[in-house]
Amino acid sequence: MTAIADMVSRAQVDPSFIDTLGGRFGDRVQTGEAVRRQHGTSEAHFDPVLPDAVVYARSTGDVVDLVRLCTTAGVPIVPFGAGTSIEGNALPIRGGISLDLSEMTEIVAVNAEDFDCTVQAGVRREELNAHLRDTGLFFPIDPGANATIGGMASTRASGTNAVRYGTMREAVLALTVVTPQGDVIRTSRRARKSAAGYDLTRLYVGSEGTLGIITEVTLRLHPIPETISSAVCGFDTLQGAVDTVVQSIQLGVPLARVEILDDMQIRAVNLWSKMDLPEVTTLFFEFHGSAVGVAEQIETVSELAQANGGGNFQWASTAEERSKLWKARHEAYYAAVNLRPGAIGWATDVCVPISRLPECITETKADLEQASLPATILGHVGDGNFHVIFSIDPDNPAEMVEVEAINARLIQRALAMDGTCTGEHGIGIGKQRWLVEELGDGAVEVMRMIKRAMDPLDLFNPSKIFAL
Amino acid sequence: MTAIADMVSRAQVDPSFIDTLGGRFGDRVQTGEAVRRQHGTSEAHFDPVLPDAVVYARSTGDVVDLVRLCTTAGVPIVPFGAGTSIEGNALPIRGGISLDLSEMTEIVAVNAEDFDCTVQAGVRREELNAHLRDTGLFFPIDPGANATIGGMASTRASGTNAVRYGTMREAVLALTVVTPQGDVIRTSRRARKSAAGYDLTRLYVGSEGTLGIITEVTLRLHPIPETISSAVCGFDTLQGAVDTVVQSIQLGVPLARVEILDDMQIRAVNLWSKMDLPEVTTLFFEFHGSAVGVAEQIETVSELAQANGGGNFQWASTAEERSKLWKARHEAYYAAVNLRPGAIGWATDVCVPISRLPECITETKADLEQASLPATILGHVGDGNFHVIFSIDPDNPAEMVEVEAINARLIQRALAMDGTCTGEHGIGIGKQRWLVEELGDGAVEVMRMIKRAMDPLDLFNPSKIFAL
Repeated sequence: MTAIADMVSRAQVDPSFIDTLGGRFGDRVQTGEAVRRQHGTSEAHFDPVLPDAVVYARSTGDVVDLVRLCTTAGVPIVPFGAGTSIEGNALPIRGGISLDLSEMTEIVAVNAEDFDCTVQAGVRREELNAHLRDTGLFFPIDPGANATIGGMASTRASGTNAVRYGTMREAVLALTVVTPQGDVIRTSRRARKSAAGYDLTRLYVGSEGTLGIITEVTLRLHPIPETISSAVCGFDTLQGAVDTVVQSIQLGVPLARVEILDDMQIRAVNLWSKMDLPEVTTLFFEFHGSAVGVAEQIETVSELAQANGGGNFQWASTAEERSKLWKARHEAYYAAVNLRPGAIGWATDVCVPISRLPECITETKADLEQASLPATILGHVGDGNFHVIFSIDPDNPAEMVEVEAINARLIQRALAMDGTCTGEHGIGIGKQRWLVEELGDGAVEVMRMIKRAMDPLDLFNPSKIFAL
Repeated sequence: MTAIADMVSRAQVDPSFIDTLGGRFGDRVQTGEAVRRQHGTSEAHFDPVLPDAVVYARSTGDVVDLVRLCTTAGVPIVPFGAGTSIEGNALPIRGGISLDLSEMTEIVAVNAEDFDCTVQAGVRREELNAHLRDTGLFFPIDPGANATIGGMASTRASGTNAVRYGTMREAVLALTVVTPQGDVIRTSRRARKSAAGYDLTRLYVGSEGTLGIITEVTLRLHPIPETISSAVCGFDTLQGAVDTVVQSIQLGVPLARVEILDDMQIRAVNLWSKMDLPEVTTLFFEFHGSAVGVAEQIETVSELAQANGGGNFQWASTAEERSKLWKARHEAYYAAVNLRPGAIGWATDVCVPISRLPECITETKADLEQASLPATILGHVGDGNFHVIFSIDPDNPAEMVEVEAINARLIQRALAMDGTCTGEHGIGIGKQRWLVEELGDGAVEVMRMIKRAMDPLDLFNPSKIFAL
């Protein structure tokens, strides 16, 4: 595990402060070990680090009151949604309050005729899509985990559908935010575009809770396509699979999803999800459009796949078959980690310009083949984005050191190709060094200026993204 | 004309400072009246306000040196591209230096296989598209004017293609910026998505030069569609035309462009561009896609138009016919202003959720019918965005007062419908009051915090967007 205690110092929280919180929030303030541990444990490779207390908010007003109490007392606040982030983004590394927003589950408004909706931050994406079903619309951003919308906005999440529908950067129309000063602001109106002042919406999206607390999110929705078809296709080589994707994108095929899983990842999926896919590099496709449009797309992509050493497409045309396929894809992280019983996971992610993707993935695969522990490749290759998932023996510190080195080589490879150290996981505590390497001291210093101005007491998810 | 002198005070610029600039920039420092007047005159209704000098930059290094000299001397810098903005965005209202970037015309790189390019800020969009022609790609954002890419980024421009391809918010992948501290930063890598830290790219897009100087822009490009078809269609009523657009959008038709011109605007276009369109509310359409896809779109939209009192589509299928049609649309502003010889123009723009558009446009039309001066409606109705253009007698101050009142009613109408006071023109000096009305003091105060932190001396396009 990656130790955190030495990285930063904890804030001192006076016990009387917890009593004050109790006076306002009653039993929605929790200090029991189990609850604090749940909010201080990440799905990834970081040591647990417990908050002093957990507060459950049910309204923007609750958040305002908590913010005022914490800023007066100098106590850090770290927002917490579903806890599914994987760069330690929601760990309370300097102690203080873990602000749990998962009970803020109201769907405030659905404006079907405008293709938008407004939800509280704790709504999860699967619940939102269940709610929307009768409207003929859906919310496409799908990071795999059933994350909260607030958490997805905070980490600028994306996932399998981003190649067609964009990321949270494009999906968020407006936000309600409680600022570190305790003000409630709305960053934009519902018009689909605006040139009115600084783009505060995009500034908060991806700021990981360091600039204030997102309590409501207005989202763009999309019509459920007339036709949806999913297929898997195995390839003779990794390069052939990646080339198929790159060529499809370059021909302008509007793929809705295209995921790569290498042979090791397919083995993990077969074991975990009880499937029997051939254990070769495989692409998972989804096509959206009119019947005619989808047929056109499939024709183009099948031809490219064949020319690149792909086998036949195996179709999943019913909703049940599709659901089984994508469930297996969504559980790929757990499948990969559990290649060894009792192992802990480390998922990293990079994103490069699409033309460099074949080179980046094949070099990474060669590196992984030298590793002493299991590691899989999977990813949203239509964006140039892929993950490596390591299955690490927690009792063998040498493996942690080895993974750190492989991860460093992966990121350096991506940066050398004009790529980014994280396509969608965020910086959290895991990639702060790489952010500076990627954008330079000058750009990170501009981020610090913004942070210092907006959160002058450094209480909002402090010590994340960069050191102040 | 709207007087500016009383709004803010000019900076004092010592004559020896101009000599210092001459030592560094030679004859690229200009102080002649004509050049200063050109850089102090807007296309819209604002009084001219002249800079103390104009400096022509040819490189990012030039901009760094100018920024250092100006910050040392406490002299304002206002970036200037093509001078086509219409809310006074580039007027040097506190004096100082007009930094002309129009000679920074290098196309730095075209990465056709990644669908992106990097250009210096002074490249104009028509030149960029001419350069790209052989690659099979194009840059879709089209605000009408042949603006510079840097200026378009600074004002978060959009225009006729935004309904399909988005605005500069979506089009800009990365920026090179000279900060007020004189550092050169790059806001992002070329990967299509990233979760690495604050979204500085989107913060600078639309910041109107108030946070630093954009010197290079990396843009997303799109494949030139296999099939492009344009058509015009006249309607019995304004409501019928708007309903046709709203229903098409709600059915998911991926219109590439859809522009409304009311009867008065058609009259102006006929006069200015020597056309003979029937003088009724008219939609200009453009469809992009595969041959089959375009045929599908046209079928759907024609049916909707017929059901809403539209006439037959008049097709412009050759490149020449299309070019004539869109040239007429692009000159609509000049056509409208020149409904009266010697008049000056005032173009305002609002944007509302699409479901409110029919109501917003018809109420606005009713208001304009009471006006004592000519005014036209035209706009990018697929986004919910439209303009009103007034043709104002400069010798009749009462007309200016009347237009101010109509503009105020228009904006209040849009805000009451959860819309924005500007879809694409920006705030500049013309809409500062409305920005506060739209987003509230709290949100504008966050913008001020950012401005004070990033430009502590308040020298970069000072007193724009908001008062500090």
